Amino acid sequence: FSFPIYTTPKERDVATALYTKKVDLTCTLGGDGTILHASSLFATSKRVPPILSFSMGTLGFLGEWKFKEYKRAFREVYMSGAGAGYGSTLLGDNEDAKAPQSSVSTPTTTDHPDSSPTTTPNGWSAIRGKSMGSTRGARVLLRNRLRVGVYAADGSPLTPSPTTTTSPSGAVYAMNEVIIHRGRDTHLAVVEVSVGGRFLTEAVADGMIISTPTGSTAYSLSAGGSIVHPLVSSLLLTPICPRSLSFRPLVLPAHAPITLRLSEKNRGREVEVSVDGVRRSQGVGVGMEVRVWGEEIRDRDGKWMGGVPSVVRGGGGADGGPGGEDHWVGGLNGLLKFNYPF
Amino acid sequence: FSFPIYTTPKERDVATALYTKKVDLTCTLGGDGTILHASSLFATSKRVPPILSFSMGTLGFLGEWKFKEYKRAFREVYMSGAGAGYGSTLLGDNEDAKAPQSSVSTPTTTDHPDSSPTTTPNGWSAIRGKSMGSTRGARVLLRNRLRVGVYAADGSPLTPSPTTTTSPSGAVYAMNEVIIHRGRDTHLAVVEVSVGGRFLTEAVADGMIISTPTGSTAYSLSAGGSIVHPLVSSLLLTPICPRSLSFRPLVLPAHAPITLRLSEKNRGREVEVSVDGVRRSQGVGVGMEVRVWGEEIRDRDGKWMGGVPSVVRGGGGADGGPGGEDHWVGGLNGLLKFNYPF
Amino acid sequence: FSFPIYTTPKERDVATALYTKKVDLTCTLGGDGTILHASSLFATSKRVPPILSFSMGTLGFLGEWKFKEYKRAFREVYMSGAGAGYGSTLLGDNEDAKAPQSSVSTPTTTDHPDSSPTTTPNGWSAIRGKSMGSTRGARVLLRNRLRVGVYAADGSPLTPSPTTTTSPSGAVYAMNEVIIHRGRDTHLAVVEVSVGGRFLTEAVADGMIISTPTGSTAYSLSAGGSIVHPLVSSLLLTPICPRSLSFRPLVLPAHAPITLRLSEKNRGREVEVSVDGVRRSQGVGVGMEVRVWGEEIRDRDGKWMGGVPSVVRGGGGADGGPGGEDHWVGGLNGLLKFNYPF
Amino acid sequence: FSFPIYTTPKERDVATALYTKKVDLTCTLGGDGTILHASSLFATSKRVPPILSFSMGTLGFLGEWKFKEYKRAFREVYMSGAGAGYGSTLLGDNEDAKAPQSSVSTPTTTDHPDSSPTTTPNGWSAIRGKSMGSTRGARVLLRNRLRVGVYAADGSPLTPSPTTTTSPSGAVYAMNEVIIHRGRDTHLAVVEVSVGGRFLTEAVADGMIISTPTGSTAYSLSAGGSIVHPLVSSLLLTPICPRSLSFRPLVLPAHAPITLRLSEKNRGREVEVSVDGVRRSQGVGVGMEVRVWGEEIRDRDGKWMGGVPSVVRGGGGADGGPGGEDHWVGGLNGLLKFNYPF
Repeated sequence: FSFPIYTTPKERDVATALYTKKVDLTCTLGGDGTILHASSLFATSKRVPPILSFSMGTLGFLGEWKFKEYKRAFREVYMSGAGAGYGSTLLGDNEDAKAPQSSVSTPTTTDHPDSSPTTTPNGWSAIRGKSMGSTRGARVLLRNRLRVGVYAADGSPLTPSPTTTTSPSGAVYAMNEVIIHRGRDTHLAVVEVSVGGRFLTEAVADGMIISTPTGSTAYSLSAGGSIVHPLVSSLLLTPICPRSLSFRPLVLPAHAPITLRLSEKNRGREVEVSVDGVRRSQGVGVGMEVRVWGEEIRDRDGKWMGGVPSVVRGGGGADGGPGGEDHWVGGLNGLLKFNYPF
Repeated sequence: FSFPIYTTPKERDVATALYTKKVDLTCTLGGDGTILHASSLFATSKRVPPILSFSMGTLGFLGEWKFKEYKRAFREVYMSGAGAGYGSTLLGDNEDAKAPQSSVSTPTTTDHPDSSPTTTPNGWSAIRGKSMGSTRGARVLLRNRLRVGVYAADGSPLTPSPTTTTSPSGAVYAMNEVIIHRGRDTHLAVVEVSVGGRFLTEAVADGMIISTPTGSTAYSLSAGGSIVHPLVSSLLLTPICPRSLSFRPLVLPAHAPITLRLSEKNRGREVEVSVDGVRRSQGVGVGMEVRVWGEEIRDRDGKWMGGVPSVVRGGGGADGGPGGEDHWVGGLNGLLKFNYPF
Repeated sequence: FSFPIYTTPKERDVATALYTKKVDLTCTLGGDGTILHASSLFATSKRVPPILSFSMGTLGFLGEWKFKEYKRAFREVYMSGAGAGYGSTLLGDNEDAKAPQSSVSTPTTTDHPDSSPTTTPNGWSAIRGKSMGSTRGARVLLRNRLRVGVYAADGSPLTPSPTTTTSPSGAVYAMNEVIIHRGRDTHLAVVEVSVGGRFLTEAVADGMIISTPTGSTAYSLSAGGSIVHPLVSSLLLTPICPRSLSFRPLVLPAHAPITLRLSEKNRGREVEVSVDGVRRSQGVGVGMEVRVWGEEIRDRDGKWMGGVPSVVRGGGGADGGPGGEDHWVGGLNGLLKFNYPF
Repeated sequence: FSFPIYTTPKERDVATALYTKKVDLTCTLGGDGTILHASSLFATSKRVPPILSFSMGTLGFLGEWKFKEYKRAFREVYMSGAGAGYGSTLLGDNEDAKAPQSSVSTPTTTDHPDSSPTTTPNGWSAIRGKSMGSTRGARVLLRNRLRVGVYAADGSPLTPSPTTTTSPSGAVYAMNEVIIHRGRDTHLAVVEVSVGGRFLTEAVADGMIISTPTGSTAYSLSAGGSIVHPLVSSLLLTPICPRSLSFRPLVLPAHAPITLRLSEKNRGREVEVSVDGVRRSQGVGVGMEVRVWGEEIRDRDGKWMGGVPSVVRGGGGADGGPGGEDHWVGGLNGLLKFNYPF
């Protein structure tokens, strides 16, 4: 019995290309940070293979399995397939919601020719095993990412992150957020914010966060942002220590591009840019722009287009009711100690 | 030259039925509050005819026209038709966003047999006038409403609002928000909050707000909620003076029903329920539930299903660029004095 | 062995007068609410006898003793006397702070001729027992109250609270806060706020809170106020759901009177006034004023002038270090779940 | 007519010593930042000579004069003397406040032998001119500073700031705040916070601010702190982007020393320390402590002990009423756009 072991090439872009080509399923051992790292390995790829994550301790927001559940986890992923998606499990019995604005679909093989379709129930049950029935299936939560590019004052693309150096499109994906921050500079950053091509406001602040809903429980929360459910298609614009009493955090449509432009008022000073916690090697200077788009999960034809597919625990509780969502509610109550009364 | 003048029957439900049957276009003279009132006249109707609103003073969030623009406004509505919708105008040139998750569509006649299709360009250009071209057209912003019902402890529906007494479905629509509040009671309300049929938290607070994105700049903002763009399909859950340091406002998917259940811990006390600022005549007691669903703007087939169609000013600026959104950004900067620096 | 048992006369003012005359020490069994109630019995009295409070469950902010400690509690109060005050125990070894701005002093008998001086060490050790030494003594925390009066548009005093009807000065004391609130009125209250006789701002809000530092962990906290240590001589001005993005809570000097005047813009509507959770029977109308002063703990000569003397647990820990403050820090960490990390 | 012109020695400490010895009155041309800089020249001195500041543009919080008022300003300072202090002007007619906890006094010559007593009315009227009467006098607002020292893990003092290298006490004064911040480090700082020698909490955050009331409208405000009037003797503890939903800002007594200790959990990482906007050249490492004390304005005997004496405009309005405070209220309303309604 033999199987190949792949090692990582040194060059990050080559590695990412190989990852994308070879990896069918990413398995992580650790917490939310580990999942974030696994996701960042595919920061320049439109397609991310499913992630199956095992917590080594407390359960986080991102739907980890307990490690002792590993047999069930792999069985459900390989034999039963991951089920029909997360969005539907959230829905109650609601006549108006019969046709949910489904942000979730099961990946199909046509989009991903180099890898076996890991999470398609039909595919798997036909090829690799027998479905154990829909009530037992794990579920896939497709988490929207955001796409970020850095552009010079003349509009030409620069690389936004140290995680990539040769991406032709000059953009990378982030699961949590992109941050600009004045860093050690003692002067506040002056940033012109546009949404959908329209000037919104000039922010004077330590920095700015543009976050996905998944990232709304990370750094954006520390900076005062709201908590946004991962199925709300949106981007969060949260200032860091703004020099204003009236800069309330904003939740914007995922399909409206957001631009942060360094104002001339910064007088040559640069700000730092971080993508999912990794700082870009070079600062961003006056006139340069950080542009962010929300990732659309699928297009009009229902074709799968992106997101980080996370294999999350199905319900399977004693009530037999809809599950799959306990990790988010559980994360709120367990990790954040949300709404602890006094 | 003669035309009929309708007066309002006393019985609200009869009036609403007639409104729905007879009204092609609602024209308001006033601010956001007047629009809210116009919307509430259709609180029990799935279909709301378009609203064309003229500001008598400062321009608000809801896209009023200046009164002196009235000729242009009516010309655009009647002769050119309202254009292809608001959502697309927000979009920049973004390859990933080619297929926006369109929350907006033009109404079609099939859904609204009793009224002439006011805002369909083709319809209007064929019947009533000549299109002046897509660059001149006004635009329709379909604002999601929420639907709210009050249910007895045994699950039977009660009427949620004084605006209706006989609605068979026992539910009404709100453009801004539904609020429960302890009112004059000196004891805090204890409310069990569920989302998508799953228990989320027990809130101990003066009250709770469930708001649409449109309502995010109304009472929810005073209570500390984020500002959510009207095109983000979502519901806001914002507590009023919660007895907790850690109840951060939540932004939830529009398609996940939210239930507020009065806990037994209220010991017989009731809370007050208000829908878009109108208080329900009777309180809500222990065991009773307030259930809220976000309104889906359209179903999978693209059929128009609801929302409040607001005729908003098109761009038409010197730049010829995408317009239609200035009222939201303008409302932030003008009305809220958003991000005034210090 | 016999001792008198007093019952409460029906008339509140007569009762308060008798309480003031007869009570040497108030002993409460319950939590913070019970202490608040005990304090309110002396709402019209400049002098409040010491309060010794036993918790029946969790320990609160106000320094309760565990009930099983009752022997030690009474022994320390009666035999050892309560020690030199709370303020000094907070101080570390700090050369600049050698002369603390002591907000605390031991009551002297001269001010309270009708009652035996309960908490004066010298007094008690001379008269009633033997001091067990300063290291064992309980301590007295003098909590500042605020004084509130309601005035008619012509400046004549009205009674601010149902707890009193005949107080000649027309003012009562509160340990936590005074609140004005629009109650069930659907219109926001418009309140002109002055500090030290100078107009500060016009608040449009559900209501306003003026709180003592002790009350900063009560309702003001729910409304978004900061947490202020009970030894900071100050008043908190915290708005309830203000119609503004930029109304940050204020901490004002205790000696600056604050006036809340109902603006003519309220058009005849009234607001409700509550003092320490008890609602005044009559509303406050247009032109009327709610005036609040912080209570000075002592005057220049060091004579005791007010506050609620709470007998709090001394340190007596294994470290023998300064104690007496664990209840405040303990309340933060235990009750509020302050700074629970995520 | 001749007078000496002093130039600044290169060595900061020598300069400060000379400043302290030679300067009778500091005159600034600029805004709040200039005043802050002037104050920092005396960062190692217990005594700060009065500051008379002229605004070159908008008026700030710190009580600047308009430049065109310069004749009146100097006349009031030199001929009339600065009046009886700021605190008293804040007071209304309040029987309980007859003996205000005066944070303000006029400096006396005995404390400051090397400089002529600039702001003592009697002194000036006797020596240099004729008093124009108390109604015309400018007023002195004594702003509390805080004192900050950095200590090694073994308790030995280090210098906290680049503004001084040889201060024997190893401590400097700040008018606004001391900040620790993780700077460019991607890991959050873990800080053990103690108050009055007692452990309060472990903060995990980007950083921590300890601010004077004067600094409450500076960086602390951006981080979410309350606004504290300069006459409230207190220190503000405000976290910067804390990893907690429940770290509400704290207002602590000025006389309680606050200690920030870098936890071992930082694993060798350092944080940056800034005092009034000037970054210390060296970071602060694991086990090291930043200790902060509020400055007492005067001791028990009423002797002047510190603070930054700012000559602020007296009332002198048409109403002849209490003045001197318009700059704070004016700063709130003018600079902060406090409570702008929506």
